[in-house]
Amino acid sequence: MIQYCNHCGAGVTFQFHPGDSAAANICDACGHIHYENPRLVVGCVVEWEDRILLCRRAIEPRLGFWTLPAGFMENGETTAQAAIRETHEEAGARVQIDAPFAMISIAHINQVHLFYRGRMSSPHFAAGVESLEVDLYHPDQIPWRELAFRSVTLCLERYFADRAKGVFGFHETDIPAG
Amino acid sequence: MIQYCNHCGAGVTFQFHPGDSAAANICDACGHIHYENPRLVVGCVVEWEDRILLCRRAIEPRLGFWTLPAGFMENGETTAQAAIRETHEEAGARVQIDAPFAMISIAHINQVHLFYRGRMSSPHFAAGVESLEVDLYHPDQIPWRELAFRSVTLCLERYFADRAKGVFGFHETDIPAG
Repeated sequence: MIQYCNHCGAGVTFQFHPGDSAAANICDACGHIHYENPRLVVGCVVEWEDRILLCRRAIEPRLGFWTLPAGFMENGETTAQAAIRETHEEAGARVQIDAPFAMISIAHINQVHLFYRGRMSSPHFAAGVESLEVDLYHPDQIPWRELAFRSVTLCLERYFADRAKGVFGFHETDIPAG
Repeated sequence: MIQYCNHCGAGVTFQFHPGDSAAANICDACGHIHYENPRLVVGCVVEWEDRILLCRRAIEPRLGFWTLPAGFMENGETTAQAAIRETHEEAGARVQIDAPFAMISIAHINQVHLFYRGRMSSPHFAAGVESLEVDLYHPDQIPWRELAFRSVTLCLERYFADRAKGVFGFHETDIPAG
């Protein structure tokens, strides 16, 4: 994807730099190394009176499928702030964060998905620009076959299992390719 | 930092794109948006017979100060794999990962530090190219005043507190600027 140096505009070559364990695009002119690192996607399992807040995606990938409010963490914020911001942007809801709940590495797409647990401060929600609709779902009405991502399915499965036990843990796992 | 488009080499302008909540460098010619996101630094609190593995840094920042084995997560790996790789690269040690232990947001430098708990499989270690020396420290001999980063201090404080209680939790916090 990187073909030109973003410092000087010259061409780059994908190669190893002494001391680095992974290859990177290095500028042929100024030597700048364009490191590329996994991105954090941060979201939240948001409850209101035993129901879970879900958003139906208005954008690709997985347009039309249901997801937890979540998105790419941005510079200048904490992980908790990212979860609060995404919940507000995508679902128009104010959430109070309880604790981190699940961290899922998805190595083949260079992402780490981090989900918090939280509660809505009021029963107000509204679809943001990236959502077709937003709704609260009882646990026995979750649209499992219409969930957008495996990480969302996995997170919700663990969430209801923990809720049934009455003790929430912190779950770490990964999703392999395929 | 980004002055040229890495897709086409043209100039960029820092501006808002419709639908995005943060400004980014957008190419004046091809319109490519150069998103910049926080990076994950992943490391490990590694034990061998009640002692903790520390590395003295051979590189800036904080050259000469002591740290836990840790470094930037790379594309194509899971968070646990990153912790194992960094422990091997910086300390020449093989670690068996137990569980995630601490996640620390440092918003002003656009980083999230994630530390695992783990145990050495054998008492072998050796300084890697980014370490001046590597050693095992008893809890009462940790060089607290010579630790490289606040996240390392914070992680070790929580670690010994949990160890004294006999129960390890998962700790999430953030470090403000200043």
